[in-house]
Amino acid sequence: MKIVIAPDSFKESLTALEVAEAIEAGLKKVLPDAEYVKVPMADGGEGTVQSLVDATEGRLISAEVCAPLGNKVKAEFGLSGDGRTAIIEMAAASGLHLVPPEARNPLRTTSYGTGELILAALAEGVEKIIVGIGGSATNDGGAGMLQALGALLLDAQHQPIGAGGGCLQDLAAIDLSGLDKRLAGVEIVVACDVDNPMCGEKGASAVFGPQKGATPEMVQALDSGLQHFADIAARDLGLDIQSPAGAGAAGGMGGGVLLLPDARLQAGVQIVMEAVKLAEKVQDADLVITGEGRMDAQSVHGKTPIGVAHTAKAFGKPVIAIVGCLREDYEVVYAQGIDAVFPIIRQLGSLEEILQHGRDNLVSAAQNVARIYQMGISRK
Amino acid sequence: MKIVIAPDSFKESLTALEVAEAIEAGLKKVLPDAEYVKVPMADGGEGTVQSLVDATEGRLISAEVCAPLGNKVKAEFGLSGDGRTAIIEMAAASGLHLVPPEARNPLRTTSYGTGELILAALAEGVEKIIVGIGGSATNDGGAGMLQALGALLLDAQHQPIGAGGGCLQDLAAIDLSGLDKRLAGVEIVVACDVDNPMCGEKGASAVFGPQKGATPEMVQALDSGLQHFADIAARDLGLDIQSPAGAGAAGGMGGGVLLLPDARLQAGVQIVMEAVKLAEKVQDADLVITGEGRMDAQSVHGKTPIGVAHTAKAFGKPVIAIVGCLREDYEVVYAQGIDAVFPIIRQLGSLEEILQHGRDNLVSAAQNVARIYQMGISRK
Repeated sequence: MKIVIAPDSFKESLTALEVAEAIEAGLKKVLPDAEYVKVPMADGGEGTVQSLVDATEGRLISAEVCAPLGNKVKAEFGLSGDGRTAIIEMAAASGLHLVPPEARNPLRTTSYGTGELILAALAEGVEKIIVGIGGSATNDGGAGMLQALGALLLDAQHQPIGAGGGCLQDLAAIDLSGLDKRLAGVEIVVACDVDNPMCGEKGASAVFGPQKGATPEMVQALDSGLQHFADIAARDLGLDIQSPAGAGAAGGMGGGVLLLPDARLQAGVQIVMEAVKLAEKVQDADLVITGEGRMDAQSVHGKTPIGVAHTAKAFGKPVIAIVGCLREDYEVVYAQGIDAVFPIIRQLGSLEEILQHGRDNLVSAAQNVARIYQMGISRK
Repeated sequence: MKIVIAPDSFKESLTALEVAEAIEAGLKKVLPDAEYVKVPMADGGEGTVQSLVDATEGRLISAEVCAPLGNKVKAEFGLSGDGRTAIIEMAAASGLHLVPPEARNPLRTTSYGTGELILAALAEGVEKIIVGIGGSATNDGGAGMLQALGALLLDAQHQPIGAGGGCLQDLAAIDLSGLDKRLAGVEIVVACDVDNPMCGEKGASAVFGPQKGATPEMVQALDSGLQHFADIAARDLGLDIQSPAGAGAAGGMGGGVLLLPDARLQAGVQIVMEAVKLAEKVQDADLVITGEGRMDAQSVHGKTPIGVAHTAKAFGKPVIAIVGCLREDYEVVYAQGIDAVFPIIRQLGSLEEILQHGRDNLVSAAQNVARIYQMGISRK
C-alpha cells in the first residue's frame, strides 16, 4: 500500500515537512507496513522555499541584499537537491515585514533586493528560478528588480531613475541590453495567484497599495507611474506588461518580470507540483493525504490541498485533508476532489497552546483517519 | 446498510437525542439511503432521564418533593414510552445544585425527596425504577429516602430520627413493616459507578463528603453515623448494607437502597443499555457511531462510548466515536473496542462559542466520517 502525504505548512506552527512527518507518524501507528511518500508542498506563498528545499533535499543559501528602503538585509533562497532550480520568495528581500510600519511608503520601496536574489541564484548555475511574490512592500512594477539585473531604466537626462514606485514617472527610456547574460538560458517562473492587471481600478496600486502604506493620493501617483512604465515598455520594447492577468501582482512585479527573456506567470501550486513531480508520485498511490493550516471556501482559489486533490483525482485517487482549522464554508472543497476533511483540534485552548499541540494533534488525527481506512469498510 | 447512532449527551450543549440527530444529519448528506437507528444513551449520570425518555419515546412527569434542606422543589422524572419503567435522577430532588453553597451541610441534608420521587413513580404503576445517583447533596445513607417510603427509623424514644446524616447517630431501631406495599413488585436498579463501601477511609463521608460541604470534623461524624446505621441494619434486619461495592455511592444511598425489597446496584451504562435494548439494535448493524462531550482515559471507567463499544464488539461491529473534545490520554479507548475517534472542534473560540457550534460541528464531523466510510476502501 502506498500513501502519498502532500500537505502545505501550518503557518506559525509547522513546516510542510514537519506536517508530513507528523501525519506519517500517525498513520504508521496503524499501518506500519505501508509505503509512505512525503511531499512537502506549498502554494507559492510563505513557506515555498522551505517546502521545496525539503521536498528536493536541497539547501538554503544566504545572500546580503537591499531591503525595500535600501538598507542591507540577509535573505535566504533555496536551491533544489539537484542544483537545477532556485526558489526565491520575494518577501525575503522585499517583504513588508522588513519595513517598520511607520516607514511604509510604496513611493519609496524598491524590489531591487529581489533582483539581487535572482543574481545570486544565477551564480549557482541554475536552469530555472521559481519566484514566489507574496508579501511584498513594493509597488515599483519590478523596476528595482530589473535594475539589479542590469536593465537601464533612464530618465530624460539619461540617468537611472530613483528607487521606488514614486520615481517611475521619471522614466523616459528602457534599455535591456545590459541585462545579465545568464538570464538568457534560465526559465523564470513567477508564482502568481491573482489575475489583476498592472493598472487601473483593479490594478496593483488600487488593490494592494493601501495594505503597503499608500494613501489615496499615493495610490493615484503609483498607478500613473505604473501606467507610464507600461507605456514606455510598449513603446521601446513592443511588450505589453500591463494587461496580462497577474501583471498587477506584487506591486506590478508580475508585469515587470515579463521584460526578462524567459519569464512567465503561473499559479503557485502548479509550479510547486511540477517542481516536486507530484503527479509521478501520486499515480500509483492508494491514498493521498493533504492538509493546510486553515481550510475554508478560499481554499479552492489556488491553495495547496486543492491543487493536490486535482492531481490525485486525475488518477482517480482518494484524497483526505487533515487541517488545523476548518471554517463553516469549507464544503465547497468536496467538489474540487477532497473526499473528506478532518480538523485536528482536540480541545479548547489559546492559539498559542493550539499551535504548541499542532504536532500531537496531527499525529492523533492521522492515526484515527488510518483506523477508519484500515477498518476496510466497503460500500454496501 | 444499517447504522446505529448511540451517543451520550454533550454536557451543557446538546441532549443525547440532539447529538444523535446531528450525527444522523451529517451521515445522511453522504449516505442518504442508509437505515438509521438513533439510540440516545446515558451512563446513569446527568442526562439519563432525558436520554431514556427520548430513547423510549416516553415522557417527563413533575412532582413536588422535599429538597435536601426540606424546602419544596419541583422535580421531574421520566416514564418510558411503554409505561413500565420510571427513570429518576436523585439530583433532581436531592442534588447539590439545590443547596446554596453557603448552606451546604451534609449533617442536615436529606434524601427524603428522592424517596418521594420513587413514590410518584410507584403511583404510575411501573414495574421497574431506574435511579441515577450522581450529584447528590446528601450523606444520610438513604435514610430520608427510606423514611419517605414508609420505613420507620426510630430513636431510643421510639420517635423518628431527624433529617440528615447528623441524625443517624440517634438511630436505635429500624422497622420496615411500613414500607410502601407497592415496592414489593417493583425492581429498583440503582445506577452506580463507584465501588466505595459505605464507611471508612474509602467510604462515602471521607471520599465524597468534602465536595458536599463537610469539614473534617463533619466527615468523622458522618462516617460514624453511617457505620451506626449499618450496624443497626445488620442487627435488626440481618442485612449487610455497609460492604457491598457501591454502598458508599451518593452519601451511602447505595447501601441504604439495599433495604428495599428488590433493589440492586448496577453500572449506569449497563442499565441504560438494557433499558434501550442496545444489543438488539446493534446485532444487525453495519456500523455503530457513539460519542460523548469529552473523551479521555477516564472514559474507560463506565462511560457511555465504552459500554456501547463493548456491546458492538460482542457482535463484531465497527465503532466510531465522535466527541466534543479529546484529551491527550484518550488512546486507551482503542483497546476497549472504539475503532476510531474524531473530535468535532473546527476552529478556536471561547467555550461559549464552541458549545454554540456544537450541532454544526457534529454534522460536519459525521459527514466527513461518512465520506471516508463511503470511500469503500478495503484493507490491502
